[in-house]
Amino acid sequence: MPQHSTQDPLNRLIRMLAGLPGLGPRSARRLALHLISDKENRMRPLARVLGETADTIAECHICGNLDDVEPCHICRDSKRETDHICVVAHVSDLWAIERTGGHKGRYHVLGGLLSAIDGVTPEDLGLPGLIERLRRDRPREVILALSATVDGQSTAHYISDQLADLDITITRLAHGMPVGGELDYLDEGTIMTAFKARGHL
Amino acid sequence: MPQHSTQDPLNRLIRMLAGLPGLGPRSARRLALHLISDKENRMRPLARVLGETADTIAECHICGNLDDVEPCHICRDSKRETDHICVVAHVSDLWAIERTGGHKGRYHVLGGLLSAIDGVTPEDLGLPGLIERLRRDRPREVILALSATVDGQSTAHYISDQLADLDITITRLAHGMPVGGELDYLDEGTIMTAFKARGHL
Repeated sequence: MPQHSTQDPLNRLIRMLAGLPGLGPRSARRLALHLISDKENRMRPLARVLGETADTIAECHICGNLDDVEPCHICRDSKRETDHICVVAHVSDLWAIERTGGHKGRYHVLGGLLSAIDGVTPEDLGLPGLIERLRRDRPREVILALSATVDGQSTAHYISDQLADLDITITRLAHGMPVGGELDYLDEGTIMTAFKARGHL
Repeated sequence: MPQHSTQDPLNRLIRMLAGLPGLGPRSARRLALHLISDKENRMRPLARVLGETADTIAECHICGNLDDVEPCHICRDSKRETDHICVVAHVSDLWAIERTGGHKGRYHVLGGLLSAIDGVTPEDLGLPGLIERLRRDRPREVILALSATVDGQSTAHYISDQLADLDITITRLAHGMPVGGELDYLDEGTIMTAFKARGHL
């Protein structure tokens, strides 16, 4: 902290920054000084764009993506296939898949994963709404792009069970070695999975 | 980046955050999602405090400290000794010394260090103003709390030269082993300095 009163705006700013993910007291102080060293070109524009983002960005009511249009640009893009729905846990996962350019269909963002420990229920994730959407739209394929963790897998199984009576292909992302990954640095589970799922060269 | 238009506020926010020191594209995306996940308690308050800081925080015209009062609370605090002036390069250095509670005097923030390579001159740092301040106030001691680098040392020598004709004690911070530092991890220069400056146990 700087000095004296912890109530002045600079101290409040530093405390606020220090509470953000990935930042601590030291980086928060550095950041605050960086911003204040050029108020007009750094500090005020950041304040402005934060306000504008809060004003204009909202969750798409169809898929849960964040956008400044409603429905989001993916849901309203007629060139995106409606028969492939990719289900992800978080908007950041949607962004990651969009960066690959590999998915031409649409999305559904759950906002999390089922978790017995954290008490996250199907209703918390709006899973009944997803099931309803899929029953109505009848896509050919639902791609469950969920983490390869216990919570990710149990969420995938739950969704898959709910759709068992429909003629929808349900897929998940392949497990295996990360591209560029060195065998030596991988955990045994990944190596075993990649070994078992080996394919022809 | 998220998607489509790079002009929407969310994309602009992420690009702006990614340009800040210590942040990159990944941490900027994470931060933006963290903020947007609770607009009213995270995003808008941050926008507000950034604006307030830009409105109220300014450099103290006496010492260069950043504060919401002018002169700053240190310069106006009659309990701070006026006969010890600590000269630092940056406000963050002032904060670091204040956190130790070891300096009861006042400060002078240069805003940088002399640098032949970067073309930083005494005028850029307001050194004539500092010399004038010291000639007028005649403190007993000027503590040059500057980095143990070439630029720090040449800045210290410049200030010391300018004050040679005055009866002011000029000191610098001690060089040696950092407290808690392991000998093995220190560079040779530090070890040699600490060895030469050794004292009785």
